[in-house]
Formats: sequence, C-alpha cells, structure tokens
Amino acid sequence: MHTILRSHSKEVVIGHDRPFCVIGERINPTGRKKFAEALRAGDLSQVVVDVERQVAAGADVLDVNAGVPLTDEADLLARVIRLVQEHTDLPICIDSSVVEALEAGLAVYRGKALVNSVTGEDDRLAEVLPLVKRHGAAVIALANDETGIPETAEKRLEITGKIVKVATEEYGIPIEDIVIDPLAMTVGADTDAVNVTLDTIREIRRRYGLNMSLGASNVSFGLPDRPALNAAFLAMAMASGLTSAIMNALAPECVTAVRASDLLLGNDPWGGNWIAAYRARSAGATA
Amino acid sequence: MHTILRSHSKEVVIGHDRPFCVIGERINPTGRKKFAEALRAGDLSQVVVDVERQVAAGADVLDVNAGVPLTDEADLLARVIRLVQEHTDLPICIDSSVVEALEAGLAVYRGKALVNSVTGEDDRLAEVLPLVKRHGAAVIALANDETGIPETAEKRLEITGKIVKVATEEYGIPIEDIVIDPLAMTVGADTDAVNVTLDTIREIRRRYGLNMSLGASNVSFGLPDRPALNAAFLAMAMASGLTSAIMNALAPECVTAVRASDLLLGNDPWGGNWIAAYRARSAGATA
Repeated sequence: MHTILRSHSKEVVIGHDRPFCVIGERINPTGRKKFAEALRAGDLSQVVVDVERQVAAGADVLDVNAGVPLTDEADLLARVIRLVQEHTDLPICIDSSVVEALEAGLAVYRGKALVNSVTGEDDRLAEVLPLVKRHGAAVIALANDETGIPETAEKRLEITGKIVKVATEEYGIPIEDIVIDPLAMTVGADTDAVNVTLDTIREIRRRYGLNMSLGASNVSFGLPDRPALNAAFLAMAMASGLTSAIMNALAPECVTAVRASDLLLGNDPWGGNWIAAYRARSAGATA
Repeated sequence: MHTILRSHSKEVVIGHDRPFCVIGERINPTGRKKFAEALRAGDLSQVVVDVERQVAAGADVLDVNAGVPLTDEADLLARVIRLVQEHTDLPICIDSSVVEALEAGLAVYRGKALVNSVTGEDDRLAEVLPLVKRHGAAVIALANDETGIPETAEKRLEITGKIVKVATEEYGIPIEDIVIDPLAMTVGADTDAVNVTLDTIREIRRRYGLNMSLGASNVSFGLPDRPALNAAFLAMAMASGLTSAIMNALAPECVTAVRASDLLLGNDPWGGNWIAAYRARSAGATA
C-alpha cells in the first residue's frame, strides 16, 4: 500500500517496499522556549534554519507545528507553512491539535499534505476527517480513543479497525491515505512499552497492510543517550513494519540506523542510498 | 528457556527474558594473518590481549577458534583454551570444524562450554552430539544440512526440527542446551537475506522457544560502515527473538545497540545496565 504525499513540485511515497520516510520533528515550539518566543513576536527566521538543517540531514518530509500559547495558532501555522514551502520542496506534515489551525494550514498548503493528527475519538473523527477529505490529504490516526492510551496491542488494533471503517465508509477517504500511529510510549515508565508497540505494528501490518508513523523520540524520554536508544528502536520498528516516523532528523545515529535498516530490509537495492550516504559522511568527516 | 554456560567460577544464562549474550568473535585466526603466524609459531601472547580487550568491551562469552592451517589444531585449541581460562572467568564458545579439536577443547575446558558447531547433516550430528552429551555441554546447531544453506525460513525450520529431534531423542541432550543458528547471510549478495533470517528467528521462537545465536558480522560483508549495519541488524534480530550472537564486541556501535535493545525489550529493568554503561562511556570520553 502506498501513501503518496506531495509538495508543489515533489512527490514522496510511503510504503513497505520503499525506503523509510523520515519526518523531521524540529519545527515545533514545544520545549523550545526561545523559538516559541520568536514565533510569538512574529520572527520566523529560525524556521528557515530548521528547514535547511533538516533537509541537509536527509529528512523526507517536515513536520510543522506552530502551537505557541496565547497566539492565533491558525494564522501562525499558515504563515510558517508558506515560509517552509518557499525554502524546500519536501512535503509537509501539518501538525496541530487545533482543528482551525489544521484547516488554515491545509488552505495555504500547495500539494498533498499529511495531517497530524486524528484519533479514534468520535468527536475528533467528525471534526478532522471532513477536512482531510475536502483537501484530498492523507492523515495520521492515533490508535487511542476516549478511554485513553490502550495498554494492549489488541485494543489498539480494535481502534485502528474503527478508524479505518469510519474514514473509508463514512468519509470516502482512500484507505492508503490513512497512516496509523501505533503509539510509542516511554520505556522508562513501563518496561513492556516497546514490546506492546512492536506487537501493534506487526499486527497492523499483517491485518491491514497500512502504513504507520509514530513519534520515535518518545521511547527514550528521561533516559541517557537518547539517540542510541532511538536508533535501536527505529531498527526494531522498521523490521516489524513501521514505514515512517516523526523523529530527530538532526541526530546522525537515528538517520544512519534508518538507512542501514532500509538496506537490510531490501528497500535499498544494491545499497545505492547507503553507499552515497556513507561517502557524504566520510567527506563531511574529512572536510 | 534458559541455556546455562559456565566457566570454573562464573555462570552465564542465555534466555528470551535475559540481557542478550554477546559472544566476542575476536580470538579467531581467520583473516588475521599475523595472529595466525604467531599461533603457528607457538606465540600465544595476542590471545591474552584479545581476552582483555573483549572483557573490557563487555563481552559475556568468548568464542575461541584456533583453526590455523598446517598445525595440530586439537593441540593448539586446547592450549589456547587453557590460556584464556587463566585470564578470564567468562565462559567459552569452543569453535572448530574439526571434531578432534572440539574433543581436545572440551577435555581441557573447566565448566560447561558452548560447542560451535553442529549442522543438520547426518554425519556431523553423529560425530558432534556424542561429544556434547558426554561433556554436558551446550551446542550451536546451524540450520543447514547436506543440501546447503536453505533459502527459505520454512526449510531452516524443518532442519531445526530434525536437529532437535535427533539431539533430544537419540542423544538425550536437554532441549535447552540446543542453541540454533538461524543463519545470517550477506545482504550485499541477496537483498532478501535479512528478511529470511528474521522470519526464521521469529518462527523458531514461536514454534520451539529455543535460544538462538548467529554470526552477526556476516550480514554486512562487502559493504561500507559495517558496524552501523551490524548494529541495526542486531536490534532487528533481538526484537525478533535472537538471544545471542557471535559478534564484534570491540565495535562500540554494536555493543551499544545490543544494550539499548535489552532496555527497549524489557530485559534491563530500570535501565541499570544501560545507565552504568552510559556512565562508563562518558568517563572514557572525558578521561
């Protein structure tokens, strides 16, 4: 199954037979005090820096979140998206918990966006899916609902089934435009968290064949040497069927683990991408 | 299922609920011309260096191979094993394709060794298994037979079934002392090689619950930046059910990926090992 995203001039295909889709997480004011203050003051210059660094690091898609408290998020998100599209042809993942902001972002976006996100909650589905349908976008759907984050893979599968049914049958969204987030929780709080996520990924692939994306940095929250943990997690999740992640594209360990896993899983035939990336790293190291 | 190995004073337990068992591959003259020449000349000093470096790097078990052409391998292997046991209390994986060498190694070894290896070939089973039984050792059994390396997981499973049946029913070897090698081939020669290995690992775990070990460095043969590929492969294989590997313990990327995966899979509760290793790395970096 292929989920196709587009900017004004570039297409990215997410699929189990494709190289993994790295969605750069950096353009997000959460936990970045200075960046949040600059955005609130209308200074968007850091956005351009974040675009350029993530493109150089090998991101395939850029997540864009403009959730700064006490601002008009819809207006700010639309301005940031316009600016990002002036500086890159990578497709964008439009990220907000505010429906009006998603709507404003979709209205200015040139191409086919990935909407981040909807959940299995009835009111969220009813608010977000009409927007996704109207704009012909794809959507990340989190496998949780009104009852919270399910602790078992089985319950996450059940919610996935509900989302697929509602999105395709009630809203006519093509099944390939639904990207499930199987939910990655921090292993520091629950030693079984990653096992549940990997089981969920394997079963979603087996039963639905859907593309999946998750926030890969969550698993290592609160632990030392997070890039090493995230890198190992990405390799595991890819072997289980994950096809995309919102992740730290600026951590070389993580991007290298993803491209190594592409090669190992047969999605970089003849190792062309791997060898090119190795040469670029070697050139960088000796420059 | 727990495979227990012992030296004269230390026990190592291999199991799906235990931290991964890192078997250091270094004490092996294959591809090490100087080392092979020294061994042939009776100079074993490099062995002591290799023991100390691998112990310091975090190996749990040491593979010992003394296959130098035009030497009395049985005598040499016995001498090397004695020397290794004088310098470490880690258990040993006695590695030879020559049955007389395995016998000589087992005769001098103090503890419960891991014998590397038998295959599903009738004559190899008949030669090696009596030795394993007599010495109360554990054994690595490769999932190939007279017909060569099977290209499919199904055929590797079939050979695994045969080995388990013969070893337990004909030789009375406890099932937990059989460690299956699911066979890791180089992905540079066959883009599907790793997928077949991962499928084999998952199915052996599901059907038999056996411990498994493989030569992890094989997958990256002929490709650049092998440690990064091996590290991603180890994370994938561990998530699939691999419990041990003969690997490059001197590549920090690989050992870090293994310990990260232990934590992610719930086999390093509270992150005790991970945090201790992180502190050791940080101390090393600033020393």
